[in-house]
Amino acid sequence: MFSFALGTGSKNSAGEWLDVFFPAPQLGVSDSVLQLAEKHLDYSGGNQSIELSNTKAQAFAAMLSNAGETKLATVVEKLAYSEQNLVAVLLATDSKPTNVPEVYLKLHLLSHRLVKPNQINLNGMLNLLPQVVWTSHGAIDIHELPERQLQARLIGQIINVLSIDRLPQMANYIVPADVSIADSTRVYLGAYVGAGTVVMQEGFIDFNAGTEGLGTIKGIISTGFFVGKGSNLASGSASISKRINETRKQYFFGEDCFIGAHAAVGISLGDRCVVEAGLSITEDSLVQRVDAQNQAGDTVKAAELAGKSDLLFRHNPSSNMIEVLDKNKHH
Amino acid sequence: MFSFALGTGSKNSAGEWLDVFFPAPQLGVSDSVLQLAEKHLDYSGGNQSIELSNTKAQAFAAMLSNAGETKLATVVEKLAYSEQNLVAVLLATDSKPTNVPEVYLKLHLLSHRLVKPNQINLNGMLNLLPQVVWTSHGAIDIHELPERQLQARLIGQIINVLSIDRLPQMANYIVPADVSIADSTRVYLGAYVGAGTVVMQEGFIDFNAGTEGLGTIKGIISTGFFVGKGSNLASGSASISKRINETRKQYFFGEDCFIGAHAAVGISLGDRCVVEAGLSITEDSLVQRVDAQNQAGDTVKAAELAGKSDLLFRHNPSSNMIEVLDKNKHH
Amino acid sequence: MFSFALGTGSKNSAGEWLDVFFPAPQLGVSDSVLQLAEKHLDYSGGNQSIELSNTKAQAFAAMLSNAGETKLATVVEKLAYSEQNLVAVLLATDSKPTNVPEVYLKLHLLSHRLVKPNQINLNGMLNLLPQVVWTSHGAIDIHELPERQLQARLIGQIINVLSIDRLPQMANYIVPADVSIADSTRVYLGAYVGAGTVVMQEGFIDFNAGTEGLGTIKGIISTGFFVGKGSNLASGSASISKRINETRKQYFFGEDCFIGAHAAVGISLGDRCVVEAGLSITEDSLVQRVDAQNQAGDTVKAAELAGKSDLLFRHNPSSNMIEVLDKNKHH
Repeated sequence: MFSFALGTGSKNSAGEWLDVFFPAPQLGVSDSVLQLAEKHLDYSGGNQSIELSNTKAQAFAAMLSNAGETKLATVVEKLAYSEQNLVAVLLATDSKPTNVPEVYLKLHLLSHRLVKPNQINLNGMLNLLPQVVWTSHGAIDIHELPERQLQARLIGQIINVLSIDRLPQMANYIVPADVSIADSTRVYLGAYVGAGTVVMQEGFIDFNAGTEGLGTIKGIISTGFFVGKGSNLASGSASISKRINETRKQYFFGEDCFIGAHAAVGISLGDRCVVEAGLSITEDSLVQRVDAQNQAGDTVKAAELAGKSDLLFRHNPSSNMIEVLDKNKHH
Repeated sequence: MFSFALGTGSKNSAGEWLDVFFPAPQLGVSDSVLQLAEKHLDYSGGNQSIELSNTKAQAFAAMLSNAGETKLATVVEKLAYSEQNLVAVLLATDSKPTNVPEVYLKLHLLSHRLVKPNQINLNGMLNLLPQVVWTSHGAIDIHELPERQLQARLIGQIINVLSIDRLPQMANYIVPADVSIADSTRVYLGAYVGAGTVVMQEGFIDFNAGTEGLGTIKGIISTGFFVGKGSNLASGSASISKRINETRKQYFFGEDCFIGAHAAVGISLGDRCVVEAGLSITEDSLVQRVDAQNQAGDTVKAAELAGKSDLLFRHNPSSNMIEVLDKNKHH
Repeated sequence: MFSFALGTGSKNSAGEWLDVFFPAPQLGVSDSVLQLAEKHLDYSGGNQSIELSNTKAQAFAAMLSNAGETKLATVVEKLAYSEQNLVAVLLATDSKPTNVPEVYLKLHLLSHRLVKPNQINLNGMLNLLPQVVWTSHGAIDIHELPERQLQARLIGQIINVLSIDRLPQMANYIVPADVSIADSTRVYLGAYVGAGTVVMQEGFIDFNAGTEGLGTIKGIISTGFFVGKGSNLASGSASISKRINETRKQYFFGEDCFIGAHAAVGISLGDRCVVEAGLSITEDSLVQRVDAQNQAGDTVKAAELAGKSDLLFRHNPSSNMIEVLDKNKHH
């Protein structure tokens, strides 16, 4: 069993899921819980999203408790009193998600730091998610918004709209330990924010992207990028990911890298790399190698340098070229 | 009749309007509605904002229903139960607005996509609007905020302040169909956001500004700019509008234009124009024409090129000039 | 007596302060209030944060009223009915803060414009403040968030998380007179926002930083910077402050300065200085003096020019150096 969780979520008036909140998602499942799921939730193998009544959830909580699954029982017991919809998601394998609850479970696994970016199958995910109005009152179907807005106004209230988007912000579902996030609207559910990460005002982390930890992020971490420990992105910088079929190419920055202000990087980097402020590097960028004495070597595509450590990328104002210096080679 | 709508809104304790929400603003009005307005709302021609009691609104709804104006009747019937203030705005002509409800109706017309930027008269608009504290609890008069904040704190709540500004965010009044907006605080009421527009985190659209559709906006669209279908603004780019008397000059970008990252453009552009990243062009900028063989031609003020199609604006690092290449001329 | 205030605030379940709201902080205190504080609040001199029961606060309000301290009595009377925690902070001297209520009082003094940035002792302040989840429901302890989020979801609500940070946004505590703030999340409590300041979407003001007034701020004002009247920061610009021991170095920009787009300035400036767009100046930057005829003079460290008026800093594209022109010297 790949993953298991019970969640509660919103639906529109047509009964379609808008989002699901999983308070305690888990990788794997114990044998006893699996047997109870088969017996009581009619789980019949494979990947299933099973909707539950409150009564059924209460009974399931009792069984979990009897089976000694105390921690899980406590969560399910609380969920059982939800006035919202309840769903159990059982994923036998990490295959392509097929519905909204599956997608949300996978996004929770990332943001709960149970899996890392690029480790799980999210293919076709965005196509499964409806466009939702995210508000101070939760997820609202875009067609139901006008009536909700009117009803709120009539009693002197407002529904504060945060965004209109397929994905919500992470912090309204889970705030992982030991992070600072200056503006929660800029970190999406499905971001992996490692311990010790400081996301400043201008920082941004997309889903299936993130940081291992201990870095200051003032730039954009795009889908598919995982940034190593101690690496910092300066203000206005960006990692740029390429779309391949229905998903994104996978990239990484190693540890202790520094991406300068307004730089844009579309390749992987090893450890201790530096990209000078304002520089833009894609896989096809031509890069001139130079040595410590500023002697020019051969010219290569940036893609050939991807993932190598101790590189300093800089702009040569006289040749107008991108130069790369291997900081380990001193002569 | 130019426009007609009933709305509900907030006032401060001195009885001055802070904002008005119009659920169903309309261009023009049917003869039967106009006659009912004359008879029942005492509308006597011209541009009038007429405040209504709940009773009067209920009676008006009933009359609309009797007259077969079912759709409008339904809206007015709901409004009639408002605990907030009610107002009917009748604009015989599109002349300069004279009070807060008139301004709000015009801003709604833009954001409901009933009129396009630069099509209606907004002269002197900002001077009519009070500075308002926009909060999770709606519009609050700046002088009444401290008492409201204190009362909320005493019961363990807060009033979350979103902005202190003359204009609120659009999405708290209307979310038009088929748009994505990553951060609703960055699109003002009075923006025209065309179908298929994606406003990313760094995008911004002011009032009387907007997009025809199908573009990705990561830059700033200033008041007076209307951006054509399929045109994209890269991150940190901006359109810059000039103030003329009490309003803004009118500008447009054509279809399928691309404004590079951190570029700033203060002229109109035709179709398929490209402005290179980082370039700044105002009407007075000197621009050197070059042909496809990079042969320099004459130098003109950017204002002379305004609105022309197929131009590529770029920076020549050796001459430090702005160059323009007509992409249609191949020799 | 340096400062005195009564406030109400949030604690976590362990009884530790998360934040304190002071509706009417004051510099100094009258003799009669001081005597009442000694007698009734058991204030025994020095800097003290004294927690109060509602009964005690009510009695104190009555005494203040009897003593003719009507204005203060009115505030304390309201506070006395708080369902939240109550605290009186008495600061005999402006020494290093020692607890959360003291820090919050000092931050309020700045944002209420009772003291200016760099005028008071904030040493070690950040270490005293817990990391807090700032939400639409107020301050929440990071360990208590999951349960609060779950309980909200069960009844179809959400707790909208604004940030995870040591400091909250200013506007949820105090909005000073005559300011515009386009995005309240970008101005921290402890900012001093002078009358006539317009903080645009991209503007940011940290604690112990601010503006004297009448300027448009589209860039970052870092801790330790105080920007003079009429000075403007263009989009993406930043002031950069250096950490010294546990606090920040003190800087100022004079009146009527202009910091260009994406410029970064790490020195003080006098009046009427201009820093060209994109330029980055730190104390160690080498700067070439030029005269009005563009004749190069000597080269100095930027630190030597700090605080001088009428300087124009610009980039020389041929020498790739920072140049400075003294606008007062015409030959």
